[in-house]
Amino acid sequence: MPQKIKVGIVGATGYTGVELARLLLNHSHVDLSFLTSQQYSGQNLSQVYPAFEGHDLALEELNVALMAKRVDAVFLCLPHHEAMNTAKSFLDKGVKVLDLSADFRLKEASTYEKWYGPHSQKEILKEAVYGLPELHRAQIKKAKLVACPGCYPTSIILGLAPLLSEKLISSEDIICDSKSGVSGAGRSAKIETLFCEVNESFKPYNIGKHRHTPEIEQELSQLAGQDTKILFSPHLVPMDRGILSTIYAKPTRKLSSKDFTDCFKKFYKNEKFIRILPVGSFPATASVRGTNFCHISVLLDARTGRVVVCSAIDNLTKGASGQAIQALNVMHGFSEDLGLSNTALIP
Amino acid sequence: MPQKIKVGIVGATGYTGVELARLLLNHSHVDLSFLTSQQYSGQNLSQVYPAFEGHDLALEELNVALMAKRVDAVFLCLPHHEAMNTAKSFLDKGVKVLDLSADFRLKEASTYEKWYGPHSQKEILKEAVYGLPELHRAQIKKAKLVACPGCYPTSIILGLAPLLSEKLISSEDIICDSKSGVSGAGRSAKIETLFCEVNESFKPYNIGKHRHTPEIEQELSQLAGQDTKILFSPHLVPMDRGILSTIYAKPTRKLSSKDFTDCFKKFYKNEKFIRILPVGSFPATASVRGTNFCHISVLLDARTGRVVVCSAIDNLTKGASGQAIQALNVMHGFSEDLGLSNTALIP
Amino acid sequence: MPQKIKVGIVGATGYTGVELARLLLNHSHVDLSFLTSQQYSGQNLSQVYPAFEGHDLALEELNVALMAKRVDAVFLCLPHHEAMNTAKSFLDKGVKVLDLSADFRLKEASTYEKWYGPHSQKEILKEAVYGLPELHRAQIKKAKLVACPGCYPTSIILGLAPLLSEKLISSEDIICDSKSGVSGAGRSAKIETLFCEVNESFKPYNIGKHRHTPEIEQELSQLAGQDTKILFSPHLVPMDRGILSTIYAKPTRKLSSKDFTDCFKKFYKNEKFIRILPVGSFPATASVRGTNFCHISVLLDARTGRVVVCSAIDNLTKGASGQAIQALNVMHGFSEDLGLSNTALIP
Amino acid sequence: MPQKIKVGIVGATGYTGVELARLLLNHSHVDLSFLTSQQYSGQNLSQVYPAFEGHDLALEELNVALMAKRVDAVFLCLPHHEAMNTAKSFLDKGVKVLDLSADFRLKEASTYEKWYGPHSQKEILKEAVYGLPELHRAQIKKAKLVACPGCYPTSIILGLAPLLSEKLISSEDIICDSKSGVSGAGRSAKIETLFCEVNESFKPYNIGKHRHTPEIEQELSQLAGQDTKILFSPHLVPMDRGILSTIYAKPTRKLSSKDFTDCFKKFYKNEKFIRILPVGSFPATASVRGTNFCHISVLLDARTGRVVVCSAIDNLTKGASGQAIQALNVMHGFSEDLGLSNTALIP
Repeated sequence: MPQKIKVGIVGATGYTGVELARLLLNHSHVDLSFLTSQQYSGQNLSQVYPAFEGHDLALEELNVALMAKRVDAVFLCLPHHEAMNTAKSFLDKGVKVLDLSADFRLKEASTYEKWYGPHSQKEILKEAVYGLPELHRAQIKKAKLVACPGCYPTSIILGLAPLLSEKLISSEDIICDSKSGVSGAGRSAKIETLFCEVNESFKPYNIGKHRHTPEIEQELSQLAGQDTKILFSPHLVPMDRGILSTIYAKPTRKLSSKDFTDCFKKFYKNEKFIRILPVGSFPATASVRGTNFCHISVLLDARTGRVVVCSAIDNLTKGASGQAIQALNVMHGFSEDLGLSNTALIP
Repeated sequence: MPQKIKVGIVGATGYTGVELARLLLNHSHVDLSFLTSQQYSGQNLSQVYPAFEGHDLALEELNVALMAKRVDAVFLCLPHHEAMNTAKSFLDKGVKVLDLSADFRLKEASTYEKWYGPHSQKEILKEAVYGLPELHRAQIKKAKLVACPGCYPTSIILGLAPLLSEKLISSEDIICDSKSGVSGAGRSAKIETLFCEVNESFKPYNIGKHRHTPEIEQELSQLAGQDTKILFSPHLVPMDRGILSTIYAKPTRKLSSKDFTDCFKKFYKNEKFIRILPVGSFPATASVRGTNFCHISVLLDARTGRVVVCSAIDNLTKGASGQAIQALNVMHGFSEDLGLSNTALIP
Repeated sequence: MPQKIKVGIVGATGYTGVELARLLLNHSHVDLSFLTSQQYSGQNLSQVYPAFEGHDLALEELNVALMAKRVDAVFLCLPHHEAMNTAKSFLDKGVKVLDLSADFRLKEASTYEKWYGPHSQKEILKEAVYGLPELHRAQIKKAKLVACPGCYPTSIILGLAPLLSEKLISSEDIICDSKSGVSGAGRSAKIETLFCEVNESFKPYNIGKHRHTPEIEQELSQLAGQDTKILFSPHLVPMDRGILSTIYAKPTRKLSSKDFTDCFKKFYKNEKFIRILPVGSFPATASVRGTNFCHISVLLDARTGRVVVCSAIDNLTKGASGQAIQALNVMHGFSEDLGLSNTALIP
Repeated sequence: MPQKIKVGIVGATGYTGVELARLLLNHSHVDLSFLTSQQYSGQNLSQVYPAFEGHDLALEELNVALMAKRVDAVFLCLPHHEAMNTAKSFLDKGVKVLDLSADFRLKEASTYEKWYGPHSQKEILKEAVYGLPELHRAQIKKAKLVACPGCYPTSIILGLAPLLSEKLISSEDIICDSKSGVSGAGRSAKIETLFCEVNESFKPYNIGKHRHTPEIEQELSQLAGQDTKILFSPHLVPMDRGILSTIYAKPTRKLSSKDFTDCFKKFYKNEKFIRILPVGSFPATASVRGTNFCHISVLLDARTGRVVVCSAIDNLTKGASGQAIQALNVMHGFSEDLGLSNTALIP
């Protein structure tokens, strides 16, 4: 049995940071060695989130030199741009980095700079592995720097991987209509995500312009073996957690809903976190809430000749912190579901 | 100034019935002469809905013979199949009928029977006018039987009418990804719409199989002047009211987002209830909650060459009862916004 | 018939400001002459709230000198402390002021200063009338400066007025357990009222320390004719609008639930906005949402000998902007329900 | 280390049944041997709740004779009246019973019959132990029949136990104002708990008449050593899970908020699931969601001389299924938090 490892969380009081804390407290092979917070350093995590009452989790200021000595790996839950330099510092001290920002997801620095602005650590971009275990398990195993996927990209890439890699759909004319809970917007004080601004409303935003677009296209292009563009439409749902992507594509062959479903089952047959639903069922975000599971349905709409994939994840778990822990497990030879075996709350 | 008219509501305690009551109480030219209820007859509406405390609105059993004498027009808020015979009875007594069920929406009885089952009043199907004032105002004006449009169809047809009638998009390859609040499922006791079953969850249902599909296609085909098929994907949002349809189509000409937006503004320039949002804005269901407005945005996604229309309505108001009152106003020569001039609650 | 009047809203983009705009647009005797906003001046209200699309409502910077000439009365929707000086400026120009802040609610400057801090307009405190029409109609009629009641106080004072004024309860030992929707916290960007911080949670706050306590006690003391203290416990409910106060008191006489209910009916028999529910019923906030109504139930718990009053209002309407308009109607001799006759949205 | 045990769940598809399944799947010392369901027998739990996709959990018809042989203990998640006979049957076969209904909570059959109707198993009432481990641990250890406490009673009894057992409050004049999420109403199809009927609303129900009253009074009387009556006011909150009880009592001695808080800390110092919050803090239901924790705050309101206790639990976990597992752990000598160590989802 592998030894226990020590990890730290940088930026522990945002929603992805606290989700890591929640999950790691139930991880049998991980010790949580430090948590940092700019805003709340000096306090205990339970003062910010009383759900942690009874756990003694001090929030410290980040000090890479000291903290690097205390851990084997570190999770970075920092804003874009901030993460890149911190990652470099930890890597230089020999600490493995799982970065939950967008800073190392795009292979091409120029693409990053087009969508996000300047990149100051281009030289380590090459070392970064895109942390989707279902597609890049072998590389993650050896990685020092894991770029954890975005939430929308996780739901969409998992929903299209079997179809593109088997050439069952055209790589043109893919539409991804995604719907996300509000926690995806993070925990900073903004009028737009006040309760009264989003409750009892549903709306699209940034259609065709969302920053997750190049990340999705990078991975889909690799799967398809050719340049692949998508139309990506994000929407905001008045709920805390969950992403449901409804994906429309054109089949290249005449297959039935059952054929497509079988293809998904085969493609993911060894995956612990992917569940392919029976033909005629559809995933609901509540069924994966707080878990690392991805539920997928696929059907052929015979009337219009389109294939429709529906893919549901929890944006904070499989779409962020859970997936980062899954990658950590892969990196350290642990069973992939250590710390991730819980079932969703019902209701 | 036109005279006051008298109307009745058959099935007044369902969500569309009570929405009619709410709106008609503020209508200066309508007297509410009767309300019927199978389940609650003998009670007062305020006993079922305490929001009506202070109004004396008795719930009676339906008696067409007696009630027909008391009204000029009647709203039918009955389940499919039940509405058709009641409509016939009132029409025979010279009462105008606004039917909120699906029973008279489809021109072809065979289409109705394929999606809904047997139709027992085929002979009056021809008299029925599809009650979308923005498209069929002249016919509604003379109609005796108005088939009020479904909620999803209203949002989709209004979102596509300018594009199809101007031949700016292909009539093939239209995808309608719609999201509805829970009130669309009505007020009957079902496990699936219990609070704990739908709250904090988002999910698709009946993709490619929803009964509103033929109704939408009938109207789009007429607008396009040719047979038009759509892929229609409904989803359930954890909120009371609202529908947001995100519609994807292929342009036939190279137009910009601004061109498309101008085309919509022109098409709807005399419409009181249609608002075309500025380029770059997107509609939110909360902005039209409880109102008869439809908010529409349109954009060209230059990366993929698709036009994307977003259309938001309140499913119970513009998608049902408000639109029925709008049709009533048209039929009686009233200003079209009588009883419908309120602004949405914020928040 | 009285003439139309002209009014302005200072601070039109907060939740009470925009609620005033919504209601006044449907008021037959009021012209909305100006709206001010510090943050959004230069824009149109529909740019901040697309629900107002189609209305041309410019947001201006406040300029008392110019604006005073354009109106008969002004609503102040400003933070505490800011309102007092603006009120003075408008009063000096002969404009009637309806202030929705706490600045003029407390008769004693010393009480104000204890709970809110320094008061710079003590000399006009005496002119201010506490704007609860059900209790102070005659004074409001002649008032130049109306201090519109707080939301919690409205629900509690209306729930206790019949009991205290008829000496049916002891003025000691009153407990007010109140529950409010999130809009009561206003529209400023704060982490505590982000969707994900309050959704799916229920919690008390500031028990025994809430600033509405002295305001409630001032009015109750006046009703009781003696010093009256309450224990006031506010709680936050994950919903947009509504306050429900559950009030516990000790009866001085042996009366039944029916006796108490009859007493309430008699006390409020001429009131348009107070509805006393039948014995055995309880009010729900949804029944008064977006309306100026207050629903009240009263019962005697025979087992413990306590009387329990439940009182429901919409915090933004009867608890703020609707009540301010009701006061405006009183001041100008209008029917008290002008602009306030709508029924709650169901659902 | 104690051996693994085998358990069954009777009535596995209601909300308490499925919560047991969720928790027991993560319990290292329990094998789930059977699940029964009247409505869904023949199906798999994952067909009713897709959250269980990947787990093979067959739903069977209840057969006590066969099933008793397969288990050491059984959880009964049945309606009142139904549970009592099933309990008897399992007890007769030597199976320990943890009953989540009200059937064995009241010591006096006559009290049961007054509030719930006839009791057909009075002779085994004496064997039943009230399953609140914090108060009855020793008896639970030896029990064959555990009557798991109701959700409201759990929150209230835990909030009052230190005060009553230390005689710090009067046993008269206790008011319990409780607020519960909707899952407390169960999963049967009823109009009253449809999403649109409870969403965006807050309301009291059954004040002074709720069936949990005698259960609360029985335990409080025992703690106080004298007959104790309460005024119990339940309310419905538009959220899935959680109960918050705000409890008002009269102190018998002059103690400060800190004194009271220290008393609670001392009383519960060895308890794994009770957290006493610092003076000035208040519990929120979200902090205990999906967990077996109870968060409690206590303060003295110096202005009115009342002590106020706020107590938060998850109604389905500490208020039902989690507490039942805690009792199971006690009965079998397991660490009390086996299967119950998860932290609440944030957000």
